[in-house]
Amino acid sequence: MSTRILILGTGLIGASVGLALKAAAPDSKILGWDADPAELAKALEVGAIDEALPGREAVLAPDAADIYLLATPVLPILDWMQRLAPVLNEQQLVTDVGSTKLEIVELAAKLYNQPGKARFLPGHPMAGKESGGAALADAELFCGATWLFTPVDQNECALEAHWRALVAGMGAQTQDLGAERHDEVCAWVSHLPQMLSTALAALLQDTFSADPDGLAAVQAIGGRALRETTRLGSSPYSMWRDIALTNTEPIAQTLHALEQRLAHLRENLRTPELREEFATANRFRATKKS
Amino acid sequence: MSTRILILGTGLIGASVGLALKAAAPDSKILGWDADPAELAKALEVGAIDEALPGREAVLAPDAADIYLLATPVLPILDWMQRLAPVLNEQQLVTDVGSTKLEIVELAAKLYNQPGKARFLPGHPMAGKESGGAALADAELFCGATWLFTPVDQNECALEAHWRALVAGMGAQTQDLGAERHDEVCAWVSHLPQMLSTALAALLQDTFSADPDGLAAVQAIGGRALRETTRLGSSPYSMWRDIALTNTEPIAQTLHALEQRLAHLRENLRTPELREEFATANRFRATKKS
Repeated sequence: MSTRILILGTGLIGASVGLALKAAAPDSKILGWDADPAELAKALEVGAIDEALPGREAVLAPDAADIYLLATPVLPILDWMQRLAPVLNEQQLVTDVGSTKLEIVELAAKLYNQPGKARFLPGHPMAGKESGGAALADAELFCGATWLFTPVDQNECALEAHWRALVAGMGAQTQDLGAERHDEVCAWVSHLPQMLSTALAALLQDTFSADPDGLAAVQAIGGRALRETTRLGSSPYSMWRDIALTNTEPIAQTLHALEQRLAHLRENLRTPELREEFATANRFRATKKS
Repeated sequence: MSTRILILGTGLIGASVGLALKAAAPDSKILGWDADPAELAKALEVGAIDEALPGREAVLAPDAADIYLLATPVLPILDWMQRLAPVLNEQQLVTDVGSTKLEIVELAAKLYNQPGKARFLPGHPMAGKESGGAALADAELFCGATWLFTPVDQNECALEAHWRALVAGMGAQTQDLGAERHDEVCAWVSHLPQMLSTALAALLQDTFSADPDGLAAVQAIGGRALRETTRLGSSPYSMWRDIALTNTEPIAQTLHALEQRLAHLRENLRTPELREEFATANRFRATKKS
């Protein structure tokens, strides 16, 4: 019997998973649901899902699917975890793509992976685009990306092994780590780059927007350096609000450390210490990714 | 008679100009010189120059070329301006690609554009790569880029008009602005992104380098967001030292403003003000470049 996979949230990530699964596991049946009917229709149109569920009731039917992929921002993931836990059984798996993991893991430990309860495997693909939506869905989005898992229960069931195989089939490298460590590392490598890009873009907007021609000229002059360091400034608040709310302290710590580092650099623009900063940054960039 | 163009400094920018000129103005003769014999040989090897001058004496021969392009970091540009001024005449043009313009313009006003003296047209192509060297030279580097000029003298001579036409022939859009304004705007759109990327890469290096495997894992987890925001961390100190020395105060002001903006964002990770920051950043990114 083919595996039925229900994607809750058919935006960029959810719809990209759907497209990637069509290629990696053509015998699976992909169901979809989204709070936004337009996103759901677009996911169906681009072929990311085989069937659109008509509403929340259909999602919460006890046997709607074998694997549930929660592909919304973090707060709705927590909400779906609460709603699904009472209606699912041990033969079903819930997994997610949430950007922060500690709150999800804590809730999963309470509601899942117990006798009579469904399994929950927290996941996080390190892939995305600065703009969302099913219209940008890409079957290759996870090729070469790292897909992190922060398991709640070390005893892996068959359905979890199946999901891990599907993730590998999408071209991602899987890696396990603890939820607290995940949130700390992601604060450094994902949340800090996002916040600094947002801060830089907002600062430039406020500095130059008095003259709209000036703003356009500034972007023309800026070139690739400006484009790349402000690209994430396009990211939607709707997703990042939940990340900021569920990983506040680690993000605040990385921001504070960067503020201090920038001040140090500012105070040393004319001293040999600037050479040290460049040398240290050069070393970071020279390290090959594993 | 064909125009003889002498490129002083045949690194990435100088050699790329050479390659672009070969395509845009095949009747020009391109001469080259570099303080590093290996760079000069590489420029000759990749076809960026027709002839390598044997030494500083050949460069300083009174009639070595019609147009001199100073394509070194800013301090050597200032040095070459001093050396060339006494040996050149009104029929010759000196131009440059220096990243800061105020000190160059001030020196040019003293030494050039006077009766009996050569012309000087300060220029700055907004293009580059995070790694330098003639081996990376690219004939297309300036296609679609903005090439700024900060003229010292509004009366344009024929040779300056010719150089501007050559720059347009390389695919760049030219734009004039005042030197002080140039340095302020470049502090925002180029120097701040560089310093930010250096600070972030150096901070990550210090945070994660105790465990080399951890550092590689961090880069693997980071994905595109981390790659793009730290890419400029590869930039060489040798070039940025001169920029920091010749544009210290504007760079310090932009760094200080960003430190404050990051602190503001950090203090508002859980408030509705975060929405405003994302909305402002979104507006910056939505502005089309002119």
